[in-house]
Amino acid sequence: MSIAERPVGSAAGTTEERIAALERRIAELEAGQPHDKVSMVVFSGDLDRVLAAFIIATGAAAMGQQVDMYFTFWGLTALKERTELDGKTLMQRMMALMTPGSSKGLPASRMNFLGAGPVMLRAMMKEKNVESLEQLMDLARELGVTIIACDMAQGVMGIRDSELMPDLEHGGVGTFLASALRSRATLFI
Amino acid sequence: MSIAERPVGSAAGTTEERIAALERRIAELEAGQPHDKVSMVVFSGDLDRVLAAFIIATGAAAMGQQVDMYFTFWGLTALKERTELDGKTLMQRMMALMTPGSSKGLPASRMNFLGAGPVMLRAMMKEKNVESLEQLMDLARELGVTIIACDMAQGVMGIRDSELMPDLEHGGVGTFLASALRSRATLFI
Amino acid sequence: MSIAERPVGSAAGTTEERIAALERRIAELEAGQPHDKVSMVVFSGDLDRVLAAFIIATGAAAMGQQVDMYFTFWGLTALKERTELDGKTLMQRMMALMTPGSSKGLPASRMNFLGAGPVMLRAMMKEKNVESLEQLMDLARELGVTIIACDMAQGVMGIRDSELMPDLEHGGVGTFLASALRSRATLFI
Repeated sequence: MSIAERPVGSAAGTTEERIAALERRIAELEAGQPHDKVSMVVFSGDLDRVLAAFIIATGAAAMGQQVDMYFTFWGLTALKERTELDGKTLMQRMMALMTPGSSKGLPASRMNFLGAGPVMLRAMMKEKNVESLEQLMDLARELGVTIIACDMAQGVMGIRDSELMPDLEHGGVGTFLASALRSRATLFI
Repeated sequence: MSIAERPVGSAAGTTEERIAALERRIAELEAGQPHDKVSMVVFSGDLDRVLAAFIIATGAAAMGQQVDMYFTFWGLTALKERTELDGKTLMQRMMALMTPGSSKGLPASRMNFLGAGPVMLRAMMKEKNVESLEQLMDLARELGVTIIACDMAQGVMGIRDSELMPDLEHGGVGTFLASALRSRATLFI
Repeated sequence: MSIAERPVGSAAGTTEERIAALERRIAELEAGQPHDKVSMVVFSGDLDRVLAAFIIATGAAAMGQQVDMYFTFWGLTALKERTELDGKTLMQRMMALMTPGSSKGLPASRMNFLGAGPVMLRAMMKEKNVESLEQLMDLARELGVTIIACDMAQGVMGIRDSELMPDLEHGGVGTFLASALRSRATLFI
């Protein structure tokens, strides 16, 4: 109902009825409020984009927000710690061999020729005493950031839980959406 | 006005005045509430990113959200069904020849050498019985997802309505923003 | 507290107590409301993506929203007006030479071979009387859009204030987040 339609400032009903109506309306508003929460899809597997995601995530967590990071597609490669090939289909093995085996092997979205981009980026960050990606990932977990691996993308790419870092949450698109619909800000990275 | 400034818990005015003030304030809050809505800009024309957009869109629609997808720049190529060249400027014809003629021709953002990326991605999804992009697009429309083609990008790239799938909405940046400002979550993909 | 738990429509306390409680609850809701604000991270330095960012930013500003654009990583190159090399580390000089010296040199995310992409895109936009990136940037500033350069990325890439356009704001991830948590829509571009 729009502002114009609703009786405003005029006595509609008894005092008791009006207070009860206000209590109902305010409870509905409270139930629909966003939580102190930031959610993101980490779709990219580029070092620079994953870095940006963790800088924002740790910043938000330090500001008291609950942060949910949902890793899917190439983003999953940032969560890998090892590569297993046995028992995978031919295409899953090809995919595993053509994508990074861990966060240390992530390419950069720019200047990636001969792998120079990620090496330069990491060296330049170190020069300025900025945390490395791996340090930011540890910090995120210490700060209580929730890291969720996308079930469907894992299945399609053939990435097993045993290839990923320990203590991850797992979920589907509904997991991400339930978080996003309650968040103050949602990013697709 | 901040919490501190507002008289709280103290009798400011008569009961009638206080109830009327509350009714006004609550009507304003209700008018400013986000709707059960998710909006996205689909800027990318990469198969993997467009897939992610439709997986999120159909998931959100299944959860009862109204979903508005605004296709612009390379994203428009995902909505194409055919290519017409006659009557276009030289640059528009070059652009048409250098971009995919339909969703079936979308490249992948990674491993795209010799077109291997999209072929592998589609085969791996089929292996796991995940819907194809085209099936997800059909599902999105069945679920009532609104697909909007960006007027300005169509004009610049010279893409005609007759080249796009039927029954699309058309709009400008104001159409997207009107939706985004009312959404629980907005994504740029 | 959920709707179910809260006493609704029943007299809980005196009229005075109930009105005071409503006033407190509504003040809390008002304090948590988003502002008429749109925020974005401009991470990409691709001409087409930066164009999309400024089209959305100027559109939102024209619709009465306060817009905060936070430029980081490659996005900073869109704010450059000149390149200074003296006094930089070897890697910072390499980075400066391998990235565009101003918005005029931004590459396109697609069809960038031999620089054809940006030239075509700019020519096609001019053909349709769409504002150039530089005109949109001027318009954004006239409309009061806030342009923030990321301190940390400037430090890492060795980009000095004297290389960037004048009258920018500067800030860190906390600056962006403070804005995003109060925004109706947040985009990562």
